[in-house]
Amino acid sequence: MLIYPVAEKCTDKFAAEIAALLACSGIRTHHTQFGDRRVIVADDNAAAVLPIIQQHSKSIEATLDVPETYQLTSKRVRPGGTVIKIRDFAVGGGHFGIIAGPCTIETEKQVLTAAERVKKGGATALRGGAFKPRTSPYAFQGLKLEGLKILQKAAEETGLVTVTEAMSSDEVKLVAEYADIVQIGTRNAQNYRLLETCGEMRVPILLKRGYGCSLDEFLMSAEYILAGGNDRVILCERGIRTFENYVRYTLPIAAVPMLKMLTHLPLVVDPSHAAGRADLVSKLSFASTAAGCDGLLVEVHPDPQHALCDGRQSLTPEEFAVMTEKCRKIRELLV
Amino acid sequence: MLIYPVAEKCTDKFAAEIAALLACSGIRTHHTQFGDRRVIVADDNAAAVLPIIQQHSKSIEATLDVPETYQLTSKRVRPGGTVIKIRDFAVGGGHFGIIAGPCTIETEKQVLTAAERVKKGGATALRGGAFKPRTSPYAFQGLKLEGLKILQKAAEETGLVTVTEAMSSDEVKLVAEYADIVQIGTRNAQNYRLLETCGEMRVPILLKRGYGCSLDEFLMSAEYILAGGNDRVILCERGIRTFENYVRYTLPIAAVPMLKMLTHLPLVVDPSHAAGRADLVSKLSFASTAAGCDGLLVEVHPDPQHALCDGRQSLTPEEFAVMTEKCRKIRELLV
Amino acid sequence: MLIYPVAEKCTDKFAAEIAALLACSGIRTHHTQFGDRRVIVADDNAAAVLPIIQQHSKSIEATLDVPETYQLTSKRVRPGGTVIKIRDFAVGGGHFGIIAGPCTIETEKQVLTAAERVKKGGATALRGGAFKPRTSPYAFQGLKLEGLKILQKAAEETGLVTVTEAMSSDEVKLVAEYADIVQIGTRNAQNYRLLETCGEMRVPILLKRGYGCSLDEFLMSAEYILAGGNDRVILCERGIRTFENYVRYTLPIAAVPMLKMLTHLPLVVDPSHAAGRADLVSKLSFASTAAGCDGLLVEVHPDPQHALCDGRQSLTPEEFAVMTEKCRKIRELLV
Amino acid sequence: MLIYPVAEKCTDKFAAEIAALLACSGIRTHHTQFGDRRVIVADDNAAAVLPIIQQHSKSIEATLDVPETYQLTSKRVRPGGTVIKIRDFAVGGGHFGIIAGPCTIETEKQVLTAAERVKKGGATALRGGAFKPRTSPYAFQGLKLEGLKILQKAAEETGLVTVTEAMSSDEVKLVAEYADIVQIGTRNAQNYRLLETCGEMRVPILLKRGYGCSLDEFLMSAEYILAGGNDRVILCERGIRTFENYVRYTLPIAAVPMLKMLTHLPLVVDPSHAAGRADLVSKLSFASTAAGCDGLLVEVHPDPQHALCDGRQSLTPEEFAVMTEKCRKIRELLV
Repeated sequence: MLIYPVAEKCTDKFAAEIAALLACSGIRTHHTQFGDRRVIVADDNAAAVLPIIQQHSKSIEATLDVPETYQLTSKRVRPGGTVIKIRDFAVGGGHFGIIAGPCTIETEKQVLTAAERVKKGGATALRGGAFKPRTSPYAFQGLKLEGLKILQKAAEETGLVTVTEAMSSDEVKLVAEYADIVQIGTRNAQNYRLLETCGEMRVPILLKRGYGCSLDEFLMSAEYILAGGNDRVILCERGIRTFENYVRYTLPIAAVPMLKMLTHLPLVVDPSHAAGRADLVSKLSFASTAAGCDGLLVEVHPDPQHALCDGRQSLTPEEFAVMTEKCRKIRELLV
Repeated sequence: MLIYPVAEKCTDKFAAEIAALLACSGIRTHHTQFGDRRVIVADDNAAAVLPIIQQHSKSIEATLDVPETYQLTSKRVRPGGTVIKIRDFAVGGGHFGIIAGPCTIETEKQVLTAAERVKKGGATALRGGAFKPRTSPYAFQGLKLEGLKILQKAAEETGLVTVTEAMSSDEVKLVAEYADIVQIGTRNAQNYRLLETCGEMRVPILLKRGYGCSLDEFLMSAEYILAGGNDRVILCERGIRTFENYVRYTLPIAAVPMLKMLTHLPLVVDPSHAAGRADLVSKLSFASTAAGCDGLLVEVHPDPQHALCDGRQSLTPEEFAVMTEKCRKIRELLV
Repeated sequence: MLIYPVAEKCTDKFAAEIAALLACSGIRTHHTQFGDRRVIVADDNAAAVLPIIQQHSKSIEATLDVPETYQLTSKRVRPGGTVIKIRDFAVGGGHFGIIAGPCTIETEKQVLTAAERVKKGGATALRGGAFKPRTSPYAFQGLKLEGLKILQKAAEETGLVTVTEAMSSDEVKLVAEYADIVQIGTRNAQNYRLLETCGEMRVPILLKRGYGCSLDEFLMSAEYILAGGNDRVILCERGIRTFENYVRYTLPIAAVPMLKMLTHLPLVVDPSHAAGRADLVSKLSFASTAAGCDGLLVEVHPDPQHALCDGRQSLTPEEFAVMTEKCRKIRELLV
Repeated sequence: MLIYPVAEKCTDKFAAEIAALLACSGIRTHHTQFGDRRVIVADDNAAAVLPIIQQHSKSIEATLDVPETYQLTSKRVRPGGTVIKIRDFAVGGGHFGIIAGPCTIETEKQVLTAAERVKKGGATALRGGAFKPRTSPYAFQGLKLEGLKILQKAAEETGLVTVTEAMSSDEVKLVAEYADIVQIGTRNAQNYRLLETCGEMRVPILLKRGYGCSLDEFLMSAEYILAGGNDRVILCERGIRTFENYVRYTLPIAAVPMLKMLTHLPLVVDPSHAAGRADLVSKLSFASTAAGCDGLLVEVHPDPQHALCDGRQSLTPEEFAVMTEKCRKIRELLV
């Protein structure tokens, strides 16, 4: 349940009073910023909370009963949806954001080429990994700071918004200095300390679904970030682990309309990691767009054959441009 | 590997000679009708077979190396795709077939109403269960023969093609007398004796994927039917079992483009059984269409609230009509 | 809910009266034989049924409220457990039944050798496939009738009880003439017409869990057989389909104690098909025994290297004998 | 492939020379401590590496070809198995280590009571959560430092070895000051930065399998720790996510013998989190022991009914004592 104090009561002191009051009934509370206002989240159902807070009715502007286990993430809290806009990139609330680029930042030339090509192909944001979560400790771990600088340069030259992954709290802070959006990968989707750090930041976070996570768990991971005061979260569905063996992960397409019903957060789909093979990526992009997602995160490499990593799942810039054009038309048709 | 004898050699006698020859090398063969010609399937790789049959080169018109475990089902055998046409219903090879109707045949009135409404809404085929595979032996098992007669009457009145399930070899034969297409359900997807009976029939078969089956197993089930001489098989993806809990089954959307690459058989998607809830069905239909399927199998009930079975996953005729119109536009756009 | 009429009322006529009475309240009933008595199964909860039948209280000996969706299969119906005994083979109710033998019946010599070896190694029943459910229609489908005769001969020579699979209603009847126990395979676990035929028989049925089935679905499949009047069903856990890739199927060991809590039917485990590799079979047998199963179904081949089918998952007779001896000790220890 | 330099060459300088040499052929290397010796890991196959290092044959004592993707974790590297001993607790290499205690550290009294009871019941190590990875950011997150102090006190009073979870690099360092073994939870199983920190420590690490991870991924996570120089890793199987719904996670029992074949690291099983219900825990413990694990991690609470967290999956101390006694006997029997 959410409790919105009136303007003059939006203080930690008042929140502490409410907290003390509810604690007597065994109800835990949490005080945070949500968008442009302060809110107290009471970890319990309305029936128990309401009578207790009625005595403070003059100090409380509104309450909102949210029956889900997640609270700030619930669609009920912001029915119109959250829009995240950075320069020409916008996602959510009717905006479709296309993020594209190579899996890994290899060289300045590779990234600049890719950036120009994906921009021309319809992307408004550029992805590229500087810190790479590799299954093997001996594999190439990314160019790290050098990669961030290359990404930043590509942003300056093209105007594209940049998205790159961070795997620790320190990396989140570092990435936030160089990139526009910090990505949290599937393997860290329930790394709660990392999510807490994301909650303290004001940089938008692209949060990937853990490949073994239920939708509820995915939304609870987002809730960690929102509970910290950062409501600029973009969800990313990237496939789950099942018995299917012709793809790396199974893209559970029903998650797209389902998440759109459950949460106000924008949702993009990553067809590249889901499929693990380029020949399915365009069709999965069409399907995701038709299912109602708010954007795509696609691997595009100027020269997939020679990519350091994940080349077999990367589109060429030409394929990408054809694909985005069709996605644009599908969206027009369905809105 | 497929071996096509020249016209005058398309006899069981010649096939037996080839079989005997290959058996010496431990290679098993199978002689059958495929479309309008006879073919010998050699259950082995080309390298082993070719030298053996070269001595019969004058009797053999062509051979085709099919490296997959399935043979007649492979895309290589009929790259242009199989088209199945019955009256106004057509699926495959560029045709999009929409099959709709109630889960269960309840009354003549219900079926006739549903038939008229789904026809108006864009369907060219009518579905409805007369023999129902129920998890409980005590649950309503369908109207059986009476249901088939109702379905037939609805076909006569509306011209719609009819599809209904059979669960045993005897039922296949009975259904084939009353309906246009025999459906084999997900629970019988690996009921090989039933598939063999389907192979002996000349009625088109709508074969659902087993919810625990891999794509290879799905195609091998189709192969059982084709091996029997019946190449009029419509595949139906209807969702697989995973850990996801907000839907009854997970619709693995990548299976759509993948199957279109692997096989020449037409592929329809059943979003109703996949989702198990009506509020996701339209979006899953858009996604499936965008992913390239050849048609849809959708539950529509004139009065979902009072359906005997599966009401919560049925669209109303109005929702159905809106949905098919959008699917039509998506297809236009993507072809 | 189960309704047991008094002895003189155990007639179809009385059952029809009760059925008519309950039908007025929309409750479906089913009249069948369960063990040595007749029972009426009312497909509804006690609260609705009880007042209606009270007026027949003198004709009704007892009622039993079974809250599960399955009824006759529930542990509540026979808390002491069902024992199935045939000659020296016994399973359930404290008896541990070991069934072993080759995947496929190849030759008389192979089966007789295997039979003698597994008997010496501790088995009291012999398995071997005459009708083989092969994924490919072109693969060897078993020796069929000839195989059944070989199996019968092995039974005569060794006294071993025999278990072999049937895939259609006709095959069930044929198998019942030659073998002691009819096996229904994982691919037919929800072939309801086949299960109905099994319900009409009086031969014991070994019912394998469908590899995609929930426990509830597994028990409902057994219920189909019990509802037909055949309560001699042996359940067999043989692994489910998951993302694990070092085994063919995942053996969900918790299913063993869980099923023992839910049902009175004996439960054996098939570690061979679960693992798909011989080097895990003994350890899975120990684990299953320790988890409380009532027996094992193990593939043993006199010469695994040269088996026609599934050789890589077969134990040698020597390995088998060592394994059964340890299982025997684990059981002694835990009882 | 592993390269062991002769004693006088076990320097970073020599490793750098070898690295430079192999880098020319595109082979990446890593120099680390493994147990009591230095080793160079070459991320490539023997065939490519061997000729290159032959010119340094006098400086190289031995090489070991490890075909698996994990290297130091492979069974080949230490066929006798790794033993981890702390006071009376020992696991691996024939030792069976039983770790038990409450899910969460609630009060000093609760922990001391639990410690005494589990010690009496056969445990040599005490578990208890101070930092709790909760799905909800609003749920109780553990007593943190205060909890660590309580745990330490319990260790002092009972002599039990202590195990508790850490969720960030900072927490790993803090926990290592108060507890004997640091646990990495299932949600952080692929948190590579955290695993790197564990690699820098000399405290033993109990690494839980990610519930969505393959065995290869699990072993690669361990490899991150070993690559950092810490070979004191205890693996913990705790169940995977599947479609099964009567348990929280499916315990894939075959993983136990499989992991024992693949790696030298000790393996314990956590039946409590796998089942999520107390009534299955003892049976799963018997099964795991029979399958060959090296120990157990079990939730035991003096008063499960009133536990703050996970009470429904906790054994009572009495149940625990009965269970460990049986596990002891199973082990005796199987060794």
